[in-house]
Amino acid sequence: MRKEHLMEIPLKLIAERIGGRFRGNGEKIIRGIAPFESAASDQITFADAPKHLKRLHKSSAGAIIVPTDAPEFAGNLVLVSNPKVGFAKVLELFHPAVTPFEGISSRAVVGRQFSCGRDATIAPLAFIGEDVTVGDRFICHPGVAIGDGVIIGDDVQIYPNVTIRENCRIGSRVILHPGVVIGSDGFGFAPDGGSYHKIPQVGTVQIDDDVEIGANTAVDRATLGKTWIQRGVKIDNLVHVGQNVTVGEDTVLVAGVLIGGSTTIGKHVIIAGAAAIADHIAIGDGAIIGPMSGVGKPIAAGDVVSGAPHMPHRIWLRVHQVFPELPAIKKKVRQLEKQLQQLLGEDS
Amino acid sequence: MRKEHLMEIPLKLIAERIGGRFRGNGEKIIRGIAPFESAASDQITFADAPKHLKRLHKSSAGAIIVPTDAPEFAGNLVLVSNPKVGFAKVLELFHPAVTPFEGISSRAVVGRQFSCGRDATIAPLAFIGEDVTVGDRFICHPGVAIGDGVIIGDDVQIYPNVTIRENCRIGSRVILHPGVVIGSDGFGFAPDGGSYHKIPQVGTVQIDDDVEIGANTAVDRATLGKTWIQRGVKIDNLVHVGQNVTVGEDTVLVAGVLIGGSTTIGKHVIIAGAAAIADHIAIGDGAIIGPMSGVGKPIAAGDVVSGAPHMPHRIWLRVHQVFPELPAIKKKVRQLEKQLQQLLGEDS
Amino acid sequence: MRKEHLMEIPLKLIAERIGGRFRGNGEKIIRGIAPFESAASDQITFADAPKHLKRLHKSSAGAIIVPTDAPEFAGNLVLVSNPKVGFAKVLELFHPAVTPFEGISSRAVVGRQFSCGRDATIAPLAFIGEDVTVGDRFICHPGVAIGDGVIIGDDVQIYPNVTIRENCRIGSRVILHPGVVIGSDGFGFAPDGGSYHKIPQVGTVQIDDDVEIGANTAVDRATLGKTWIQRGVKIDNLVHVGQNVTVGEDTVLVAGVLIGGSTTIGKHVIIAGAAAIADHIAIGDGAIIGPMSGVGKPIAAGDVVSGAPHMPHRIWLRVHQVFPELPAIKKKVRQLEKQLQQLLGEDS
Repeated sequence: MRKEHLMEIPLKLIAERIGGRFRGNGEKIIRGIAPFESAASDQITFADAPKHLKRLHKSSAGAIIVPTDAPEFAGNLVLVSNPKVGFAKVLELFHPAVTPFEGISSRAVVGRQFSCGRDATIAPLAFIGEDVTVGDRFICHPGVAIGDGVIIGDDVQIYPNVTIRENCRIGSRVILHPGVVIGSDGFGFAPDGGSYHKIPQVGTVQIDDDVEIGANTAVDRATLGKTWIQRGVKIDNLVHVGQNVTVGEDTVLVAGVLIGGSTTIGKHVIIAGAAAIADHIAIGDGAIIGPMSGVGKPIAAGDVVSGAPHMPHRIWLRVHQVFPELPAIKKKVRQLEKQLQQLLGEDS
Repeated sequence: MRKEHLMEIPLKLIAERIGGRFRGNGEKIIRGIAPFESAASDQITFADAPKHLKRLHKSSAGAIIVPTDAPEFAGNLVLVSNPKVGFAKVLELFHPAVTPFEGISSRAVVGRQFSCGRDATIAPLAFIGEDVTVGDRFICHPGVAIGDGVIIGDDVQIYPNVTIRENCRIGSRVILHPGVVIGSDGFGFAPDGGSYHKIPQVGTVQIDDDVEIGANTAVDRATLGKTWIQRGVKIDNLVHVGQNVTVGEDTVLVAGVLIGGSTTIGKHVIIAGAAAIADHIAIGDGAIIGPMSGVGKPIAAGDVVSGAPHMPHRIWLRVHQVFPELPAIKKKVRQLEKQLQQLLGEDS
Repeated sequence: MRKEHLMEIPLKLIAERIGGRFRGNGEKIIRGIAPFESAASDQITFADAPKHLKRLHKSSAGAIIVPTDAPEFAGNLVLVSNPKVGFAKVLELFHPAVTPFEGISSRAVVGRQFSCGRDATIAPLAFIGEDVTVGDRFICHPGVAIGDGVIIGDDVQIYPNVTIRENCRIGSRVILHPGVVIGSDGFGFAPDGGSYHKIPQVGTVQIDDDVEIGANTAVDRATLGKTWIQRGVKIDNLVHVGQNVTVGEDTVLVAGVLIGGSTTIGKHVIIAGAAAIADHIAIGDGAIIGPMSGVGKPIAAGDVVSGAPHMPHRIWLRVHQVFPELPAIKKKVRQLEKQLQQLLGEDS
């Protein structure tokens, strides 16, 4: 959680804190952050897109975070290698995270054999089962339910109404947003006559370090073995990850993505919003899957695909532009056919 | 919450309460409401579709709510300007809302500096942070978690397991259904080498009066500034609203809609189920977006679009009918080509 | 909830417990279950796909569950009529479900007139309203909120943070995964000038025996009457079921499916992931609807459809293969037109 404070930070201190160099007036007092278009004379903003870099003189900002190769400009600048990361760090500076609770509330419910790191805070109305281990600076919000045998690393924040079922493992610096479900049963049934026999889902979920998972997303536990979200993965809201899925390091799943069971997704993959991936397929490292894509077959490393069913993105760009012309094409084909038949008739 | 009661209300009183005129027997006792096809002789129903208005004599209902220009009919009628609204009002009459809890439960957790309106009810196991303000007749169900600094208007109902994160604002007469998340972090990261650096999401969410939000829907807080759901917006279940989005007055988002970050949606827009809207675009007032549409470009006010990617709806209606004929069209083109080549061959 | 135990079970006992016949060494000690490819010499696996049955000799498993007509093989086998069900039963054997809580916690909140079956367990921080009835062996996890007047059968398990609103009915052997919402208001509004007037949703939800509902799925209550999920239905994560919908026996709804209000779905239907079904339509018994399909019209019993908008699946299989060729087809048609015009020009 973050709180609003009135802060005044001189520009040279900002530059120092975000690992950049300032140019201009280092004593300039900055009181906040704002977008390029609306920043006031006591606020700092950032520019990395060409459209902004060309118009630095148009900004009313008190200072601008720019890349080290930014064009000459007489105003106050902070030069950094990555202005967007610099912007993120300035946001952290002006909005320091505060711990919303203190210690372990007597109105939380904590099971036996709880192994707790230093400076952990557990809110009232949180539930922690038996044999649970959590690391340092753990923050557990109200309404969270953590099952027996769960192991959680350091600096983890779990927002309200999250459920983590038994025996799942969560790494360090993981953030689970409200309503997330980790370790729900995979959707596995054996057809048995006209009905279905439930296949017990006895595996777990392992979430590695630096993963962030968005509101109301669900990650199913494995049938056997584990569903595995690897280091650095970022998952948006309302995503479904089926049982026995592996999501590789630094992969991004945007809102509404659905991943079928036993599918393996490589590292540095980007799956855009509302795309659906079938079960039991493999997506190679570095692949990019466009919004609303439907992927039913494997994708090779580095491939960029779109469409449902998916095709190479560069083809999709031309394909979808033909869609609105289809009635005209159909009509034209009928016309050509008629003309040709006439011609052939005349010929014969 | 509503409870079942045995109620007996004479027709003339119903007419009075819903602002209509009765025709027929005003002393007729009505005991409930039912659909046109199944209403019994002591129940009231409504008819506004032509298919029903033509068959008023076929209904067994004790009375029918009809528009003021309904065809002549000898049975009991209530004439109103808007029969569907009349129907809603009769439902309210027969199913008065009851407050499910009384006062502020000692088993709720309420933080310091709580400013509470009159007749508020806070259920056991609800959590309210510090510096929270709520208006009159606030109803807070179990499992709700409200963060520090939240401000809520009058006559708001928050169903179980809803999360409202810190510093968000909720207007009056707002209904949040179970599992809703308000104010989760926007999905914002700065690429930093092969990994991602989290951009703190320090903005808020503002929800204006008369908004209703469906089960398990998530509305992300802004990076800076606010995500804004304006007066009268109705949002269905499992919808995603990204950071810094504005949704204009009286707009409707049907189940499964996904709205990317920083997109602006006008007033009186209808976005049908499972449609996905990209980030950073504008949808004009009064636009209608069909089900499962994919919208990646701005939509002008009043436009009606469908398809993924979207096109004018009237074109889509003809386009999608060509889809099943595509294999035949492809074959025909190949045939024409062969015939023409033959012809050209003969000619040469 | 299931716990890991070290178990050693002789093969003949396994055969007996899953209703099969063993072949080979009945005294062989089995210590666990694993997939065909990775099973070790003290583990059991199963084979029912031809690709596995042809390679029984390649498995290192201590024993293999196979169909009664499996090919000859010298290793240890358990012959059953349905190997996948056999596999499910062995999983149950090695991972017996354990009750995570004991009795009714004093830190749960239970309303007046609670009628409770034998051996019910209600976790701390669960909320149960007034006039609620639950059957034998009820398991209620933390963060669950059950409204007034709810009636629940025997052997039901309700995972954390589930909400069941007032007056809904749940059958026996039902499993509700974390974050499920049952009985939220249907999305019903009467247009009233430029705004919307809420139509009170005074019906309920009825869920019959042997239903399983996945994480963060929402089932809306009916406007009048009931939304009805019939016996044996299996629903995956993040599914939306609108008001007044009926889902027939043994039907399967895969993750991300959206069902519009008042739609009726037959028995033994399969709706694949991310498909969306419009409101007020009927889907016949035994229909199969492909992934990401968009269904806006009724589907007859036994029909197999795909695509958005849907078409017969066998046609869709050929249609979607033409999509990537559309730019080439368009170009070819233009070419043919030109050639034909030349030809006609020469002729004239």
